[in-house]
Amino acid sequence: MNKNFKGVYAVAVTPFKEDGSFDVESAKKHLDWLIEKGVHGICILGATGEYQSVSNEEHKAYVKEIVPYICERTSVIVGASRERPEDVVDLVQNIKECGGHAAMVLPPFYCHPSQDEIVEHYRYIMEKTQFPIVAYNNPGSAGIEIEKETFQEIFKLSHTAVVKESSGSMQKLTEVLIDAPEEVSVFCGCDNLAFESFADGAVGWISMLANVAPADCVELFNLVHEKKDLEAAFAVYKKLLPALNVLEGFPKPVQALKYGLKSRGLNGGYVRRPRKELTDEEKAFIDREMHLDEIK
Amino acid sequence: MNKNFKGVYAVAVTPFKEDGSFDVESAKKHLDWLIEKGVHGICILGATGEYQSVSNEEHKAYVKEIVPYICERTSVIVGASRERPEDVVDLVQNIKECGGHAAMVLPPFYCHPSQDEIVEHYRYIMEKTQFPIVAYNNPGSAGIEIEKETFQEIFKLSHTAVVKESSGSMQKLTEVLIDAPEEVSVFCGCDNLAFESFADGAVGWISMLANVAPADCVELFNLVHEKKDLEAAFAVYKKLLPALNVLEGFPKPVQALKYGLKSRGLNGGYVRRPRKELTDEEKAFIDREMHLDEIK
Amino acid sequence: MNKNFKGVYAVAVTPFKEDGSFDVESAKKHLDWLIEKGVHGICILGATGEYQSVSNEEHKAYVKEIVPYICERTSVIVGASRERPEDVVDLVQNIKECGGHAAMVLPPFYCHPSQDEIVEHYRYIMEKTQFPIVAYNNPGSAGIEIEKETFQEIFKLSHTAVVKESSGSMQKLTEVLIDAPEEVSVFCGCDNLAFESFADGAVGWISMLANVAPADCVELFNLVHEKKDLEAAFAVYKKLLPALNVLEGFPKPVQALKYGLKSRGLNGGYVRRPRKELTDEEKAFIDREMHLDEIK
Amino acid sequence: MNKNFKGVYAVAVTPFKEDGSFDVESAKKHLDWLIEKGVHGICILGATGEYQSVSNEEHKAYVKEIVPYICERTSVIVGASRERPEDVVDLVQNIKECGGHAAMVLPPFYCHPSQDEIVEHYRYIMEKTQFPIVAYNNPGSAGIEIEKETFQEIFKLSHTAVVKESSGSMQKLTEVLIDAPEEVSVFCGCDNLAFESFADGAVGWISMLANVAPADCVELFNLVHEKKDLEAAFAVYKKLLPALNVLEGFPKPVQALKYGLKSRGLNGGYVRRPRKELTDEEKAFIDREMHLDEIK
Repeated sequence: MNKNFKGVYAVAVTPFKEDGSFDVESAKKHLDWLIEKGVHGICILGATGEYQSVSNEEHKAYVKEIVPYICERTSVIVGASRERPEDVVDLVQNIKECGGHAAMVLPPFYCHPSQDEIVEHYRYIMEKTQFPIVAYNNPGSAGIEIEKETFQEIFKLSHTAVVKESSGSMQKLTEVLIDAPEEVSVFCGCDNLAFESFADGAVGWISMLANVAPADCVELFNLVHEKKDLEAAFAVYKKLLPALNVLEGFPKPVQALKYGLKSRGLNGGYVRRPRKELTDEEKAFIDREMHLDEIK
Repeated sequence: MNKNFKGVYAVAVTPFKEDGSFDVESAKKHLDWLIEKGVHGICILGATGEYQSVSNEEHKAYVKEIVPYICERTSVIVGASRERPEDVVDLVQNIKECGGHAAMVLPPFYCHPSQDEIVEHYRYIMEKTQFPIVAYNNPGSAGIEIEKETFQEIFKLSHTAVVKESSGSMQKLTEVLIDAPEEVSVFCGCDNLAFESFADGAVGWISMLANVAPADCVELFNLVHEKKDLEAAFAVYKKLLPALNVLEGFPKPVQALKYGLKSRGLNGGYVRRPRKELTDEEKAFIDREMHLDEIK
Repeated sequence: MNKNFKGVYAVAVTPFKEDGSFDVESAKKHLDWLIEKGVHGICILGATGEYQSVSNEEHKAYVKEIVPYICERTSVIVGASRERPEDVVDLVQNIKECGGHAAMVLPPFYCHPSQDEIVEHYRYIMEKTQFPIVAYNNPGSAGIEIEKETFQEIFKLSHTAVVKESSGSMQKLTEVLIDAPEEVSVFCGCDNLAFESFADGAVGWISMLANVAPADCVELFNLVHEKKDLEAAFAVYKKLLPALNVLEGFPKPVQALKYGLKSRGLNGGYVRRPRKELTDEEKAFIDREMHLDEIK
Repeated sequence: MNKNFKGVYAVAVTPFKEDGSFDVESAKKHLDWLIEKGVHGICILGATGEYQSVSNEEHKAYVKEIVPYICERTSVIVGASRERPEDVVDLVQNIKECGGHAAMVLPPFYCHPSQDEIVEHYRYIMEKTQFPIVAYNNPGSAGIEIEKETFQEIFKLSHTAVVKESSGSMQKLTEVLIDAPEEVSVFCGCDNLAFESFADGAVGWISMLANVAPADCVELFNLVHEKKDLEAAFAVYKKLLPALNVLEGFPKPVQALKYGLKSRGLNGGYVRRPRKELTDEEKAFIDREMHLDEIK
């Protein structure tokens, strides 16, 4: 485990105003609330933060605004995935300058890279930035799996700080956990495998649900990881699972989280194109299925 | 069928110099050769043209250079897929101004859009650009399938000129063909379904292989579409299939095509990151499996 | 092509009485009608004939009753798939003695055999029976794909008369067609790929839909295979596709066919366990989606 | 949890002599050894016991020989899957008469039943036999998934004693666990999800690996289920995983287990057709990958 990266990171939504501009005030209130509820870290501009819907310039401006605001209070990871490694480097340099603690980088997600191209992508970015990187297996988003041997190459790269496993396969998470060296933290990146990942030994979670239920997400982690109380932990997990399953299955999870924030007295704002706001039917589905009033 | 869009379009590779800059001279020679060999159209900056590896500014500059050079000699489609519809609009405006005939646009490929978001993406782009659009089903690249009902909505949009079907499923191509209205051209977008797609009635092909074997690709199309000579056509197809299968299965098809151009006395140039050049083993595989010396 | 096996084979349903016994009279009337409508062959006791729902003894009794009744009027293939090759041999011997023309044998469908076990299964059966065998790729039923190299071994076995391709992948059918030797007939085994398979050169079709629409199925085959009239053929295909798609997608295709026979004045009888009869909702779905009144 | 069914059940291989007859003596020695090593139960004639390769008569004879030999010493489950429910009933009656404790029954595995047909299959068998049944989700073998609502119907059937989950999806196991009523035991049926299944609350495991490493499998279960010592348990799991992964991935797991028994001084015997014995290369693979000398 990399001792700098551990625990529950909320992968925060990015609130937009109706005109599409950043609603920085709402974002800060949300982040204050998350920190107050005890999350171990914050991940901004991940997929849940609509990072492909902001330009490079906007990305840098938002990081400049948000990272300094929270980086002394909590651990901060910033999503910086781009198809072009030059763009990734540009974004990561800015994250570094602003005081972030790591950058989360997906393999190139459009070109379906070969395994050697994945390794080279990470190597190049680390070489140019000399900054801790969260490598990230998400075949659903990237169209390709980071294979066992490829991870072994990535583990050898000196700035691999965290691996986030989002394939949805428990067997893959186990494989990564067993192969990862001491100095790399393995994080769960699949909301409905959180409990089992912690039981296996994953030391962190980049969590969508923590946007709206940070206290319960943190309790789940602590019950397994610190207190080793499986029964109490599974009781919490059982309470969270309806919401976790919606986030992994419903096609508008970002909108679901933004909608859910209303019930916490917070403002998740609008989404940007190509996303659309929830219809009334979709809101009724969220109300019926996520049981947000039963979790916190 | 949209009478403006028909036949074999080579989805041209983009030659780069070793320093990563466009090798415009090599590109033009390649395009001259393709036109001379009889392709019905050219598609630049598609996936095979590494369009996610060029910035918006570079995209516009390349279009300004290339489209006027060929647009009076052949039909020109330009790839303009971006996650942000504002970026797509920006690119399409430029294509329009430069004299291109259509823009090829994938659904948002990172966010895994819901079906209504796909329709809205196309609607918005067409509204802002008033330009012929090639809609494009490629679940392998976009992570989502454009469903039957969604296509029916897309068909109603007034600037849907072409649908390119790249799912790899013959049944899907047939469904799209049957549902498409008169004024939309349905194109094959899966190299190893070309023969069957033409037999079904597809009126065009956005073809990777046409980069290196334009004459045979055109002959295949003409034998089925014009002459209805299935046996002669299948004989050509059989000759092309080893190469078509490599392009659909090998993880570095762009590099394979650039490498293959050497045997035609042309220069495909280097690839850009995140792609890597072929290893010697990979070149030997191409030599052994694609049988480029037997096709033209 | 094996000249003994060519054209449209209806894979006939097996009519049962309410008490579960064979309704031989109804079966014979159905087969008479199919032959009268011009099918090139009949396949009894295929999956559509519920062959896993009859015991070995029943299988042999039904073959004794039916095969002699039709084998001088048409080509007869009998399904004889069993997990145990000894059982297959037993069934095939009986088919041979009764005058059948070939036996259709799936790879062992429960144990998920390795590729060498598939070859050995066919080799053993052919050695013991010395009878023409229809080898059959259906990963949906058998859980495994017969791979390219495995087919090449199967092609070398002297009694491989026909290959039926039911994977649903056009690319796989093409691969098999190209690799098959002169003396083997390649048949389409996927109802909604019939047109494209014939265009590719498949010389036969083991067809579910031919149970209820034999004349149109035969016309589709003749238009492509004999007359090479793609446009007329596609018009027929388009008319059949709603029904073909239901048969490939609806979970109770056997029941749908038996129900459909009513509208032809024929009796498909009851199904056996584990199958259940159609509910009223399912009958309404068939009425609405298959358009049986528009085909013949 | 059904208090009669709990813990590690070895799904025992069935030793055959070279002539294909049962090697009862070797079977009994193996079962004695398993009981001595502390397994909580034995499952004979499961998939690992080649149950599709024995006829109904042989099945009954083997049960008559083996069940009385072990049923007073340990809990005994017998595989009784057949496509025809009448055959299942016949086999289950015999298991009941011989003193077995439950019968394990897969949904009909050939016909790809609809969800209502699955429920009816179980209902019919339970009605006719009045005997505890292990219902079994294994889409890899049966071609269909038992869906959430279907399981809820199966849970209502009065003789559903155990559910074995073999889909390979952790999320599915969790769903079943949460939905199962008090009186049903949920068992892991996927060797490389054993640790996580126990952590989730699964109370048993039908285990392939327990054939050759019963003591370690039992220790893994006890460490999680009884002692709640996750770290010690994961250390055992890590030691077992190379072997567990081979059993879930290698196409000849039955043969691998029979081969592995040699190193324990036991005789797993030959396999029956359609299986083939291991080649020397496959044996070398087992030696290299399963690390049987490091587990017990």
